[in-house]
Formats: sequence, structure tokens, C-alpha cells
Amino acid sequence: MFKKYDIIVVGAGHAGCEAAASAANLGSSVLLITMNMATIAQMSCNPAMGGVAKGQIVREIDAMGGYSGIVSDKSTIQFRMLNKSKGPAMWSPRTQNDRMRFAEEWRLMLEQTPNVDFWQDTVNELLVKGDRVAGVKTSLGISIEADAVVLTNGTFLNGLIHIGEKRFGGGRTAEKSATGLTEQLNELGFTSGRMKTGTPPRVDGRSLDYSLMEEQWGDDNPGKFSFTDVEVPQQQKCCWITYTNLDVHETLKEGFEKSPMFTGRIKGLGPRYCPSIEDKINRFADRDRHQIFVEPEGLHTVEIYVNGFSTSLPEDIQYKALTKIPGFEKVKMFRPGYAIEYDFFPPTQLGLTLETKLIKNLFFAGQINGTTGYEEAASQGFIAGINAHQKINDLHELIMKRSESYIGVLIDDLVTKGTEEPYRMFTSRAEHRLLLRQDNADIRLTPIGHQLGLVNDKRLEKVNRKIENSDTIIKYLKSTSIEPSLINNLLEELGTSALTQNFKLFQLVTRPQVSLNDLRKVSAGLNDLLMQFDIETVEQAEIKAKYESYFEKELEIVGKMKKMEDQEINPNFDYSGMVSLSKEAREKLKKIKPRTLGQASRISGVSPSDISVIMVHLK
Amino acid sequence: MFKKYDIIVVGAGHAGCEAAASAANLGSSVLLITMNMATIAQMSCNPAMGGVAKGQIVREIDAMGGYSGIVSDKSTIQFRMLNKSKGPAMWSPRTQNDRMRFAEEWRLMLEQTPNVDFWQDTVNELLVKGDRVAGVKTSLGISIEADAVVLTNGTFLNGLIHIGEKRFGGGRTAEKSATGLTEQLNELGFTSGRMKTGTPPRVDGRSLDYSLMEEQWGDDNPGKFSFTDVEVPQQQKCCWITYTNLDVHETLKEGFEKSPMFTGRIKGLGPRYCPSIEDKINRFADRDRHQIFVEPEGLHTVEIYVNGFSTSLPEDIQYKALTKIPGFEKVKMFRPGYAIEYDFFPPTQLGLTLETKLIKNLFFAGQINGTTGYEEAASQGFIAGINAHQKINDLHELIMKRSESYIGVLIDDLVTKGTEEPYRMFTSRAEHRLLLRQDNADIRLTPIGHQLGLVNDKRLEKVNRKIENSDTIIKYLKSTSIEPSLINNLLEELGTSALTQNFKLFQLVTRPQVSLNDLRKVSAGLNDLLMQFDIETVEQAEIKAKYESYFEKELEIVGKMKKMEDQEINPNFDYSGMVSLSKEAREKLKKIKPRTLGQASRISGVSPSDISVIMVHLK
Repeated sequence: MFKKYDIIVVGAGHAGCEAAASAANLGSSVLLITMNMATIAQMSCNPAMGGVAKGQIVREIDAMGGYSGIVSDKSTIQFRMLNKSKGPAMWSPRTQNDRMRFAEEWRLMLEQTPNVDFWQDTVNELLVKGDRVAGVKTSLGISIEADAVVLTNGTFLNGLIHIGEKRFGGGRTAEKSATGLTEQLNELGFTSGRMKTGTPPRVDGRSLDYSLMEEQWGDDNPGKFSFTDVEVPQQQKCCWITYTNLDVHETLKEGFEKSPMFTGRIKGLGPRYCPSIEDKINRFADRDRHQIFVEPEGLHTVEIYVNGFSTSLPEDIQYKALTKIPGFEKVKMFRPGYAIEYDFFPPTQLGLTLETKLIKNLFFAGQINGTTGYEEAASQGFIAGINAHQKINDLHELIMKRSESYIGVLIDDLVTKGTEEPYRMFTSRAEHRLLLRQDNADIRLTPIGHQLGLVNDKRLEKVNRKIENSDTIIKYLKSTSIEPSLINNLLEELGTSALTQNFKLFQLVTRPQVSLNDLRKVSAGLNDLLMQFDIETVEQAEIKAKYESYFEKELEIVGKMKKMEDQEINPNFDYSGMVSLSKEAREKLKKIKPRTLGQASRISGVSPSDISVIMVHLK
Repeated sequence: MFKKYDIIVVGAGHAGCEAAASAANLGSSVLLITMNMATIAQMSCNPAMGGVAKGQIVREIDAMGGYSGIVSDKSTIQFRMLNKSKGPAMWSPRTQNDRMRFAEEWRLMLEQTPNVDFWQDTVNELLVKGDRVAGVKTSLGISIEADAVVLTNGTFLNGLIHIGEKRFGGGRTAEKSATGLTEQLNELGFTSGRMKTGTPPRVDGRSLDYSLMEEQWGDDNPGKFSFTDVEVPQQQKCCWITYTNLDVHETLKEGFEKSPMFTGRIKGLGPRYCPSIEDKINRFADRDRHQIFVEPEGLHTVEIYVNGFSTSLPEDIQYKALTKIPGFEKVKMFRPGYAIEYDFFPPTQLGLTLETKLIKNLFFAGQINGTTGYEEAASQGFIAGINAHQKINDLHELIMKRSESYIGVLIDDLVTKGTEEPYRMFTSRAEHRLLLRQDNADIRLTPIGHQLGLVNDKRLEKVNRKIENSDTIIKYLKSTSIEPSLINNLLEELGTSALTQNFKLFQLVTRPQVSLNDLRKVSAGLNDLLMQFDIETVEQAEIKAKYESYFEKELEIVGKMKKMEDQEINPNFDYSGMVSLSKEAREKLKKIKPRTLGQASRISGVSPSDISVIMVHLK
């Protein structure tokens, strides 16, 4: 009934969808198996994409030819560039999305991707031949062969939903869980653990009093994620901000004795940086309020996502506490928040390609690796799909570097350090974050996507033009001086010191107060030049000009570290005879099998002196 | 946590959605409880509304202020008026719909309906006080009070899905079933039974060769269901027709020994007029082919609904058989067809208002009453919602008459005769079908909707204008003659005999070959008159003119039957002492509790002589 596929992707969330797309676009025949064709690419949690560090990841996926950016753009109902007041490394695009539209756009894009087939079923078992995966077996009893399998099971593996003292099996609310896979993987030698995550109640927007909340609109000139020329809906919707208070907290505390979190019924660890409201109250007992983002679930629906109020307390406590939040006095709930526990597999069991070490051609991506977040999942799926294709075609692996992408940081962190709690990306996790910006994701990564064959020539040329043209602008700024008389009025207006002699435009741009848009007003030559280029090119030139010295310093550090970072270690390198290594280091090195000296140095328990020992052996 | 509601509607399919809307629009506070907010108004089976007799029902619902027509129109991807070559009583509007859009439009319309609240949960129990329903209890353990409850559980009550020899609990594919309610209702004294229905596989449109099939486009000038001025999408999509053949049939037969239908694993009776393909092959062994309608699932999706190929044979047999259908040689399946068994409650346990006889203020609508079809379900929900509101407000019941609507025929058939297999509407079920046309649904029923308060004055005025204006046209036709010289050329062209003397326009219209649009070409006066009216009014006049004598005859029959039909019987009428009644009639009459002599006469086992006996007692 089924031909043999090149690659089977199990699960059609953010990770599975990107995996199917990337593998198929590289030319592999892909079967995407989902429990429900009607719930492809559901946003299980908040109706938003991007945000700090996460927005950069979406841009990175897009720069390499993934779909998340395009889908997010097509379903945008509000766009904001976060942290615009900080340095450009912190600028982070974020969209509110229409939940139904997001899922629909994903599905339609996958349907329009040749090589992606679909099958609605539940995978309960892997077909394994020796140390290699050979396909899957489904709940209908069907065996489907494939050369590689990507597992992206999200929260579905033995998913257990908690609301107060009630609990029931499910992968998401009103959906079934998936069983069998964890047990089989354990038998094959994989270690699994439990994690938990949660989601807030959804409420009826008609029951809220928005006059008691703060409006939060999107940007005046909304940007977008994708570097392609995807069309973005024009209509932007308002969000609102409100706050909990001590009364809310006291009410929530009434439910603590029935909380699955506090009574120990939930064993799995939850996301530290996305805690439930009861967790926040508990851990930050001195805080007398917490922020609540009131987010519409779509352009037309009245359903509202109560961001910041994730909870697994009994539903009546949820309700009672909500009614004490300003604007929520007459709230009507659509469905309660809940916590969900699910199986994950500590990601130290993976290589940097996201292939498992135990079973060849088997890849894991997304929450199954202990991460949290749509963007983290999507990027892993994207890379796993690529590497599955590369592997079965004997092509080079794609190992993303920490110095070139957040995706590289994410995967290296996971694989090298593992994670005991849901792993979320932050800018602080990236030591070279100054270089890993949303504005240059295309410059950093489109060449990689192009080399793989995921990005066409036109897109690469566009990036090259952006580089050339921004360099042309820089060159002009560096070579062009301006007279004090032409600019001093402007400088005074901008609150920065006047010139006493001719000054290079470049030096002026390095002043925080001065932008290229200011300078073009007083320099006709600059204006003529800028008129030739698009906004992104001009912005790129400005960022480069303003922060050139910082970037150069950072690149220098990357260069210095490069020697160690790039010093390859054969994954089968035999550490057992190296008596000079500490016992802990030896064990960890054997387990993690680092691919470079850099990666080895990041393994917890591996000391600088261990690194020296390995260096000696490598030379 | 919940206030007491006026009415709780359980289930948000076609029946539940209409029930919630009608009750809320009458002013009741309604809580619509659904297992999954994301699957409100799913088209579980084919992506189409209307069709023969069913299109009339959609128009009837719309004429009275229900939503099904509007939602169908908004999500239309193809419109056809079926049977246009037959008499106007057979004309039946039918749409192909975008499945996702249909569900979304329903949800958005309900969200925009004041008084409708939503709650995602599963109802496992009714709250009952004495002989009256008092609310529901959910799987979260929440009790919610209400004055009336409408159950519209569809195929979810103890739903059991069959594919070949495999079976699993579920209310639809990939969705959970609902348990507890049947058991409680049985304890309360209700009789329940099992029915089954089925659905065909869904396939990938990209894998089909349409050049081997016949195109089936919609109408050139597409109409719509709704009498309101709802906007209908302009883009119409093509469907295709292909056929099974003996090779397909032989292949399907290979699976018969694993068929849950033929091995007796399925206990419930399926819809006779919507049989599975294996059933068709079995029952019509002499037919060497069956028609397959290849229907797109939406405007953009590639998913295809294989209408006519409903099956619960093993999925590999489904696949193998599909590949032998012209155009399906390289088919890829998205999901297999399946059969589903579910609990229903023989509808003789209901009154004509759809309230149960055993428990006051408890209403049943849709598949729970043993019907099949979206339209049948929607109309029951609509009426149940109205009567629930009327009941709790001590207002008059709404009992639809057989002589005024298909809805009346449907409910009277169900309640009076019961059904042992899924009940589907046909024009042949309506003895007065000449009068129950799609073109006059507004004339027949909008006054009733208006009187209830579901239809505004403007809509009623529009209907009254339609009546007046079409009468004006008729009057003109009857009073205006035309000279032979002006029309004989045209008559010759139309293939009908020439005139030898002046002739009334009215007499000409009664000729099958002659339409008003023909006549206006040769009669400037008629043309001037028709220019003043909309298409529907002109059409109405034409239908009236052409079929006036038939309609009059039919109305005469209605009038004659009216005496018996309208002769009321007290539902508590005591038949036990009436020894002249046959034993069977006495038992049935006690069970059904007919409201009129007409209804009594339709009860199987009640003979004309029994009716005479009752007549005597009534006088």
C-alpha cells in the first residue's frame, strides 16, 4: 500500500512540518504522518511567533529556506520589533498570529511542496534493522519502510494532562496521546525522562472590559520575518496588558493544596522561564503583581489567550482568580488552563546533526529533545530534515556553528550539555550574539541554504547585493565629509555636539543620536545614494557603521576561538586509554562523542586540563 | 464558576450549532458545550450541503432565521441547482463547501451571537430533578445548571470506529468518544439502539489524473441558499466524476472476509441510501459500475473527498481498489475510510417539539434521533433550540406541519413512525412536496420565523413584497393579450404552435417551452413590468403561472386533510378504556401520544377503523 519512502517524519507540529519541508525540498520523498490531518501545525500554546532570541531563530530558518517565517508572516495580526531601544543584537521580531490561519497556511504550503505525502495515523513503533531504523509501524498495523525517520512527537508521548486533581491521557486538550514509542526506545537502550509544560485558560473576549487595560499596538511600520517577498496581511490587531494583584494571588493560593505541581503528582520539570502563575507566586513571593498579556487568537475570533496565566490549578480556582484581574471581572472561560507531562529523551543521546547515536538514520527534533518553544522546535526539525536527507544520500552533514547562528547554539547546547528542564533560547546563551542578529540572518545563512539547494540563486543574489550595497554605503560614508555649516543645526536638534571642522559622515553615524535618515536630509549625495537601495540595505549599512568596532572585536574573538572550535575529533576517538583524563571527563567524552575540541570544552565535567590532554593526543 | 443558563446545548455539530443559535436569538442564555473548540461545526462526512430534499431543508432553516444557509453560502466553492430539468418541486440547491471555511464561518457566526457562551468539555451526565432535566455534569466534574438541555451528540455516544478487523473508540477519526450519557438515559427509562455510518477515504488530489474523469462544473449563474443578502465567494471549483468497474469490485471483494459489515462485528444498521461501496457491490451484484464523485475539500487544499466510496474494508484493500478506478491509478491516500457505530435513541420517545416524553425540558436533535445528514440534523437542532426556549418561557410550542415544510415531515416521521435505520429526507417522503419547494421556503416559513422573533421586519417585508409583486405579474399575464403577429416567430423558434388569434400571456406561459424571459422580448409592457422586480420574484411568478393548476389541486387536498390533520388530541388522552381499538393501536397510541388525528393516522398499526373510533370519542 505504501512505497518505501526516503524519509518518514512522525508528527506535524512546528518541528515535523519544517523537517518534512526541508527534506522534501532537498529532493527526498517524505511521508508526514500525523494523528489528525485537521490539526497540522497547531499552535498548542500562545498564538505568537518570535520574540527575544526566538525571532532571530525564525529569521535564520527563513534565511536557509525554511517555511516558519513565511507562514508566520501570512498569518500575522500584529508585528512588533522588540528591544528596538537596545543595540541591534537585541532587536527581536515577534508576531501575533491568527491561530487558525497559521495552521492552514502551513498545511497549504506543505501540500504545495512536491515530495511531501501525508498519512493520518499514529506511529506506535519503529522498524529497526540491526543498528539502523528502517521505517515505522502504525496503530492501524501498517508497516511503512523508509531510509530515515525523524521523530517529532511533541508532548504526545504518554502525554498526561492535569487540571487540579483531575488527570487524563492526551497529547493536547481533546486529543489522544501516543503510546508505545517510548517503551520501544527504552528497550533499544535510550534513556527517557518526563517534562511538563502548561498553557493558560482561553476566555471569551466579549466578556472583558478593555477600558481597564493598557493597549498594546504593533509597530507603525510593521516588518516581517521572511526575507522573501511574501505578502503580509495589512490589518493589525491590538493586544492588551493587565496585571494580577494580591487578591488574585490569594485566590490562586486557595487551590495550592489541589495543585498537581505542589502535591507532587507532576513529576516532570517545567519550563523555568515560562512558569505557571502558581509557580510565579510561589517563587517570587515578594512580587505583588505579574503582567498578563491579553492576546487575540485571531483576526475575527473573540477567543483570547491569557498569556502569563499558565496554570494547572482546579478550573474553579482559575476562574475565580481571573475574575479579580482588572478587566476580567465578568470573564467567561472557554476552556481551563492545564499542565501536560510527556516523555522526552535527553538530547545528549544525539549527535550535532540530531541523528541518534544508538540508531542510525533516526533523528529527533523538538520537544522530544527537551526543548520548549515553537521556534526551537521548528529549527531542530529543519536541521533534522536536512541531515536526514544528507545522510541517506551520503552527502556532507550540516552542523551549524555557534558562531554563525542561534540554531548552532541551540543544538550544540542540547547535544553537548543536555538539559534537565525544558530548554528555551535566550540571547545570553549565544556568546557571539553581537554577530547573530536578526538583520543579518540572511547574510550569515542564506549561502548555506543555497549551497544545500534549499535557496534559489535569486535569493542568494539578493543577499549578495545587500552586502555589496551596504558596503557601498559604508564606503561613501567613510569617504565623504560634511561641512559644519550644513549640519550643525541638525546636530543641535538631535542633541549632539556641533562640528567645528569638516567631519566624515561615517564618524557622525557612530553617534547614537544620529541616523542615516537624519544625515540624508543634509547630504544630497548621501540621499541620492540611499534612494537606490531598499530599507533593509540601508538599515544593514547603518548597523554596520554604528557598531563596526564592536563587530570587529567579536570577529577577532571568534577567530581566536576558531582554532580550538574547528579542531576536529573523530567521533570514534578512543578516550578509554587516556589515563591523564579525569574519570568524569572520560565518561562524559565517551558518551557525548564531541566532534570538535570546542564542543569537548563545553561538556560539563571536562576541564581545561582535560582539553590540553586531548590536544596533545590530537597533535 | 458557571451561572445557571437558560439552555445548555451539548455538542457543536450542525444540530448543536443551530440549536444554540436559535435559542440564543430568541433571548435565552445558552451554553454550548463542545469536546473541542477547534472542531466546532466540522463536516464529518462530505464537504457539501443541500441536494435533493436536503437543499429545501437548508432553505427552510434559512427562511426561519437559522444559520446553515448563510454559512454554506459563505463557504461555497461550487453551487448547483439539481434537477433543473424537472418540475420546480424537484429543484434542489446544493453546494460544495470549503470544509475549513465552513467550520470557521459557523464558529465566527456563533461567536457574534449574543447569549451564546462556549465551554470545552465532555458531558457525561445529566442533572435530573424528578421528571425534569436540571443541567449537566462534565468530565471535569463540573455541574452546570440549566432550565433546559438539548442533546446533539452525533456519532460520539459510545462511538466505535471500524477499519477492517481493527476497531477503536472514537466519535470521529482522531477524536474521542463520549461515554456515560447513554447508560444514564437507559437507567432513566430511555431505549437506545445502535446505528452505523461510514465515510470514504480522503486522497491527495495531486496524485489523480483528472484527464480520465468527467468534469463537473457548477451553475453558470450560481444561486445561493440564503434569502438574506449574504455575500457568496465568486471562485467556483470543478468537481469530477469517475466510475468503479468490475476490477474494482473484485478487489473490494478480497476484503469481504475481513469486513466488519459482513462478519457481523458491526451491529448497527447503516444508511440505506448512502451505502458503503461494499454494500453497493453486494446488494446490486448486477451493476458493473458505480459512480464516484471526486470532490475537492476546499478552495486551496489538495485533499479530495471520494464521494460514493464509503467503506470500512481494510485500508490496504481500500487502497488497492482505488488504484483501479480511472484517474486513481497513482492515488495516494491521506486517510482510510471507516465505519462508525454509535448509540441513538428511537425518536418515538420524543414529542413533536423534540422534547423527550420521559424527562421534561430535555430535547434531542440530530443523529441521536436516528437521522443521517447535515441538513436533517441542522433542522432538528434549530427546532429543538426554539422549543427549548418556548418551553422554559411558557410560550407556544412550535410544531411544524407536514403541509408547510420538509422539517415538519421529518419530525413527524421520526416521532410518529420512528426509524430503525438512519433516516434521510427524500422528496418522496413529503406528500405535499409540490408545495414544499425551495423557491417558496421564504413565503411558507418566514412569517413563522418572524412571529417567533427570529426574523426581522425587513426580511418579512421582503417576502411580502415578493408575494405581492409576483401576484402583480400574474395579474398582468392574465389580463394582457398578445397578437399572433408579434409572437409567432418566437413561438416557432421555441418549437411550439403558432397563434391564430390574440392570446393571453398567462396561457402562453403555461406552455413548457415558453418562459417569461422569452415573452418579455416580444412584450414591451411585460418587460417594463419585470424590470421593476428581482430575479426571485420573476421566478416565483413564473413558477406560479406555470403550475398554478397543480398547486391549486394540491392545496385542495391539504384543505380536505386539514380537518383530520388539525383535529387535536390531548397528549394525555386515555386510550386504555377504548376497547374498540385494536390492542396494537392502543399500545402504540399510548406510546406515541399523537397530538392530532392526522398524526395518529400515520402510526403504523393504527388502522382507519381505529381512527374512526377515536373520532367518535373526540366528538
